[in-house]
Amino acid sequence: MSENLTEIFKYIMHGVYIIGVASGDQKNAFTAAWVMQASFDPPLLVFSINPKNRSFNILKQGGICSINVLDCEQMELAEHFGHSCDTDKMTICKWQKAKTGAPILMDSLAYFDCEVSHYADAGDHQLVICRVVDAAILDGQGSPMCYNMTGDMDKSSEIFPEKL
Amino acid sequence: MSENLTEIFKYIMHGVYIIGVASGDQKNAFTAAWVMQASFDPPLLVFSINPKNRSFNILKQGGICSINVLDCEQMELAEHFGHSCDTDKMTICKWQKAKTGAPILMDSLAYFDCEVSHYADAGDHQLVICRVVDAAILDGQGSPMCYNMTGDMDKSSEIFPEKL
Repeated sequence: MSENLTEIFKYIMHGVYIIGVASGDQKNAFTAAWVMQASFDPPLLVFSINPKNRSFNILKQGGICSINVLDCEQMELAEHFGHSCDTDKMTICKWQKAKTGAPILMDSLAYFDCEVSHYADAGDHQLVICRVVDAAILDGQGSPMCYNMTGDMDKSSEIFPEKL
Repeated sequence: MSENLTEIFKYIMHGVYIIGVASGDQKNAFTAAWVMQASFDPPLLVFSINPKNRSFNILKQGGICSINVLDCEQMELAEHFGHSCDTDKMTICKWQKAKTGAPILMDSLAYFDCEVSHYADAGDHQLVICRVVDAAILDGQGSPMCYNMTGDMDKSSEIFPEKL
């Protein structure tokens, strides 16, 4: 292991997404990169979440989420929803209630409206396996953001262990 | 759901990888797109595999794999390892044994040498959660292939259900 782990792991391609969660009157949204498809039929998406994330409790209670695809020009939104903050992060954007009740980010390129199927352990994160119940393209002209365009926005270089 | 599911799911960003597996004298390799990071510490990767894939049995027996990142110019390799065939698919490439014993594709941009940690159900696929025990960049000049560059190479448009 001569190279820095942060650099090597950038070779795994990820997009950048805002994941919206809701349970009763509570809702929240956060930036995530670790999202992928996992099954064709039923169509499943899976994402990995830090269980310390405030949204995780809302997700577990509500059992629903929206996965909203960011455009490569939406770096500010990615950064905004990448931090936890005391005020309501969601007020700066326009949202619409999905079929499941999850908040859809209307400025995203496409969204997936999901019901949580089940969870699986994954080290310092949890895998959330989601059944897609609705989905649509909102802006067919854009190009999805790639995580490796975001530099060290998420400070991941400080989180990786020093070596394997 | 007005749009075609294949088109909508292309908004989820994936790379393209050759996953190498080995158990005793048996080895195989196959093309995969559904790969992502799942944890920082320990560093985990997760991929989704069709359990009908011949490599799945070898993976379960051996408990090791290499995840090799393809360059955007390596479409022919992606296609070659996307099919099962009667002859040994692996002879056309140069491989090297990783620390775990998994075969590393020496023509890839970077590789991750992994031990399987555990599995999780995911519809018509299985999630494989892998601990990365070694990794290196082999070619720092290339750009990883994106799955959405591959068109309908994997005939996924025939596999998705007609609607959600």
